[in-house]
Amino acid sequence: MPKDSYLVGLIGSGIGPSLSPALHEREADRQGLRYLYRLIDLDRLGAGPAAVGELVGAARDLGFDGLNITHPCKQLVIPNLDALAPQAEALGAVNTVVFEDGRAVGHNTDITGFAASFARGLRDASLDRVVQLGAGGAGAAVAHALLTLGAGHVTVVDALPERAADLAASLGRHFGAERAAGAGLDALPVALTGADGLVHATPTGMAAHPGLPLPARLLHPGLWVAEVVYRPLETELLRTARALGCATLDGGGMAVFQAADAFRLFTGREPDSTRMLTDITELAGATAARQ
Amino acid sequence: MPKDSYLVGLIGSGIGPSLSPALHEREADRQGLRYLYRLIDLDRLGAGPAAVGELVGAARDLGFDGLNITHPCKQLVIPNLDALAPQAEALGAVNTVVFEDGRAVGHNTDITGFAASFARGLRDASLDRVVQLGAGGAGAAVAHALLTLGAGHVTVVDALPERAADLAASLGRHFGAERAAGAGLDALPVALTGADGLVHATPTGMAAHPGLPLPARLLHPGLWVAEVVYRPLETELLRTARALGCATLDGGGMAVFQAADAFRLFTGREPDSTRMLTDITELAGATAARQ
Repeated sequence: MPKDSYLVGLIGSGIGPSLSPALHEREADRQGLRYLYRLIDLDRLGAGPAAVGELVGAARDLGFDGLNITHPCKQLVIPNLDALAPQAEALGAVNTVVFEDGRAVGHNTDITGFAASFARGLRDASLDRVVQLGAGGAGAAVAHALLTLGAGHVTVVDALPERAADLAASLGRHFGAERAAGAGLDALPVALTGADGLVHATPTGMAAHPGLPLPARLLHPGLWVAEVVYRPLETELLRTARALGCATLDGGGMAVFQAADAFRLFTGREPDSTRMLTDITELAGATAARQ
Repeated sequence: MPKDSYLVGLIGSGIGPSLSPALHEREADRQGLRYLYRLIDLDRLGAGPAAVGELVGAARDLGFDGLNITHPCKQLVIPNLDALAPQAEALGAVNTVVFEDGRAVGHNTDITGFAASFARGLRDASLDRVVQLGAGGAGAAVAHALLTLGAGHVTVVDALPERAADLAASLGRHFGAERAAGAGLDALPVALTGADGLVHATPTGMAAHPGLPLPARLLHPGLWVAEVVYRPLETELLRTARALGCATLDGGGMAVFQAADAFRLFTGREPDSTRMLTDITELAGATAARQ
């Protein structure tokens, strides 16, 4: 008998270095599946973000089982889908599309991925007062995850105060206005003084954007620090926080659990996330070494 | 390191029972490749034959390495390609498209596949005078192969005499007018009397069209008989011919060698056609058993 076979891909811009193909294919290989994960890079195609609609339709016609969707298409893809899972609908962003009987259903495993990583890595952390730095696409998913996990209050801080306010307003509509606030960077010192934890959701700390996303003096022992950046796994923020005695969570867990959740949606099979965490340590390290 | 990975597919109508996915994937598995062969069935998509152009473009954009093309698209696909290999150009039909650096190049491995099968299975057969029954798509490819192999003269016979005449005229332009003639079924008795061999290229003998494609009395010892039908491998024509003492060639070889040639074009790797011949015996048998 032919083994079970899956064809999936990632649509987005500048996705060449993505670890998703390796994360998915390694887990599939261990499960004995025939599994191919293709990168569909808008830049390589010379296509704009709006091409996502046509590409999703083409993928369905050509026998793809599903797609991951990333920047800049997570919102634009929505009008091209037949249905949305509740969390994707609440967030207004889709990172996973599953084709089922000719229908395209949108999911968001960034939310469930961050939640699973947090529950695993910072199980006993207090969620009473959380500060989140960064209100972009990743930030929106993470803030939804924090409130879904039961965070009492999330202060979203962004260099663009209106973007922070917009995200806070959206969070307020779904989780209660008293649980979210938005602010500019100048609010960071006061907000962090009384916070239990900090989530970092900007690109600072990636290989291309090294450095600290905020002044080191704003960190304090007793604050937990969770990172969204995962290349490198060990960012300057995490190193600095750990030196202060903070509990920390690197971005590898979110990357792994969003991939694991997508794998489960694509295949209906349970991925082994522990093995995938080992993979990402190896893969992120290998990538860093090549840069 | 991730293993080499290939994504290919077949575009056509009513291709559900195709053995191509299994033939390609089994050989790829033995070579340790990640290889996925998808069926892109126009009937399932509710699309007409002209959709092939759009599907080929979409496959290129979505990261396919190549495509097989079958009925009813082997001619229609041509205006959508950037270049044609010489045999595909001569035949005016493409069954294999390879994407290379963004270009789509058309090939015809039906021709090379039949030629390889014939050279292997009827090595010492005389090709002075050949009668071919059937002037459809498969027939055109086989007639080209026969003349490429050095056949002295091919008489193409078809229930539609104009179709036979058209094919003969096309063959004449490429191989010399004296080497090909077209005729209706009434010409069969005379043509076969003086023939060295008969190639059968109509659907008669397939599971859905059982029976003999011509009266048994027209066969005679000394005639070799080659079959294009491969499901079942053992057709009534081959059984009848073998009982008379004719040398015979079943259609499995053409099916295998066209697949092997496409595999080589897609991957740049040498397939093991002997192992693939074993596969098709197993696969064609399994299919027959399920019907």
